[in-house]
Amino acid sequence: MKKYIDLTLPIVPHWRCPIEIKDVKSFEKGDAANVTWFTLQTHWYTHIDAPSHQFPEGKTLNDFPLESLFGKAVILDVSHVEANEPITAEMLKAALGDTKPEKILLVKTCWEDKTKWHSHDYWDESPYITEDGAEWLASLKPEIVGFDFAQDYDIRKLRFGVPESQCYLTTHRKILKNDIMMIEYMSNMKSVKSKVVDFVGLPTALENANGAQIRCVAIEETKE
Amino acid sequence: MKKYIDLTLPIVPHWRCPIEIKDVKSFEKGDAANVTWFTLQTHWYTHIDAPSHQFPEGKTLNDFPLESLFGKAVILDVSHVEANEPITAEMLKAALGDTKPEKILLVKTCWEDKTKWHSHDYWDESPYITEDGAEWLASLKPEIVGFDFAQDYDIRKLRFGVPESQCYLTTHRKILKNDIMMIEYMSNMKSVKSKVVDFVGLPTALENANGAQIRCVAIEETKE
Repeated sequence: MKKYIDLTLPIVPHWRCPIEIKDVKSFEKGDAANVTWFTLQTHWYTHIDAPSHQFPEGKTLNDFPLESLFGKAVILDVSHVEANEPITAEMLKAALGDTKPEKILLVKTCWEDKTKWHSHDYWDESPYITEDGAEWLASLKPEIVGFDFAQDYDIRKLRFGVPESQCYLTTHRKILKNDIMMIEYMSNMKSVKSKVVDFVGLPTALENANGAQIRCVAIEETKE
Repeated sequence: MKKYIDLTLPIVPHWRCPIEIKDVKSFEKGDAANVTWFTLQTHWYTHIDAPSHQFPEGKTLNDFPLESLFGKAVILDVSHVEANEPITAEMLKAALGDTKPEKILLVKTCWEDKTKWHSHDYWDESPYITEDGAEWLASLKPEIVGFDFAQDYDIRKLRFGVPESQCYLTTHRKILKNDIMMIEYMSNMKSVKSKVVDFVGLPTALENANGAQIRCVAIEETKE
């Protein structure tokens, strides 16, 4: 039996992602259908980053083969971390242990179970990846690295209006620069019990995008 | 070897889907990142419909299990059809032949290879499913039915301002009413060579949606 686990945040109103959602047609208004209009930004909610998000000449999502989005994923479980705790290369190495690094690496903190995703603290007090941690992840040459927390220390500065030019976005610099795609703000990692799972993540098809909402699913084999 | 085939239209400006796309940040403007804002409607581009699109008390996408989106798909190849041609139950039955109907049925016309997706004719002259065709598809009790053309005759009336209440959207009425999800405006079906393929389609995570953009992929086993 296969168990399908959704690792995606719901697209709902959120202070961090000021989405507008409007009924274009609705039965309530007397129309003969329900149709919804909404706005998105390429880096809201659970999303995948392309190098062009951070590098002017970087690849867009269209420059990667579709098969990169399918494959084995290793879960690097560091869910013992606490608020504001740095996640170092040593901690990530320990989480990998003797397991073979696969093409997809997912760093699991279960942060949204400790600090609600709708709170400011989710960003202001997030654990984060250190520079050596980001370098180590990139050194394994995966095709995708995913995170379930605000994984760069300086991400917390953005909501106070500090311009991106004055922030050092550690994993963005170290991982995207190596043409490795990154998935940010995954969720529900607590439901993933295996260390290696099958993974599929499919982004919206916005052409030549610097990032896109992605629906991420882990597939576990169960014994039932 | 597995071959991954994208069955999704690109999200690009189109007269039928008046998307707005704006740079929020861009290196060209002197920012330190590229970030894009855009608008969507739940029934633009390649998308999946939930029953609540057409029925006030109908299920939303959240009411279906995630595993419905994964599984074997049978390709019902009626790509011999021409402009404005009705696709009947008999033609669909002949396309199925002795093959077992699977949980996902995809009706293949390769319409966008005959009439460009950017043209008005794509809608005005589309082949379409007859009432008995839609009933027969529903009678097989699939979880999803997909189409690569404007599959209901009256869809062509919508762009002339005919209200939905005066249109009879055949497959919508016959398929969604039976709690079967529908995928509209798939593309690139010409690349699918097998009659039965593995299929994954993952929609954006807009909560309780009446429809959503979906990224659809067919997976074929190849001999290489």
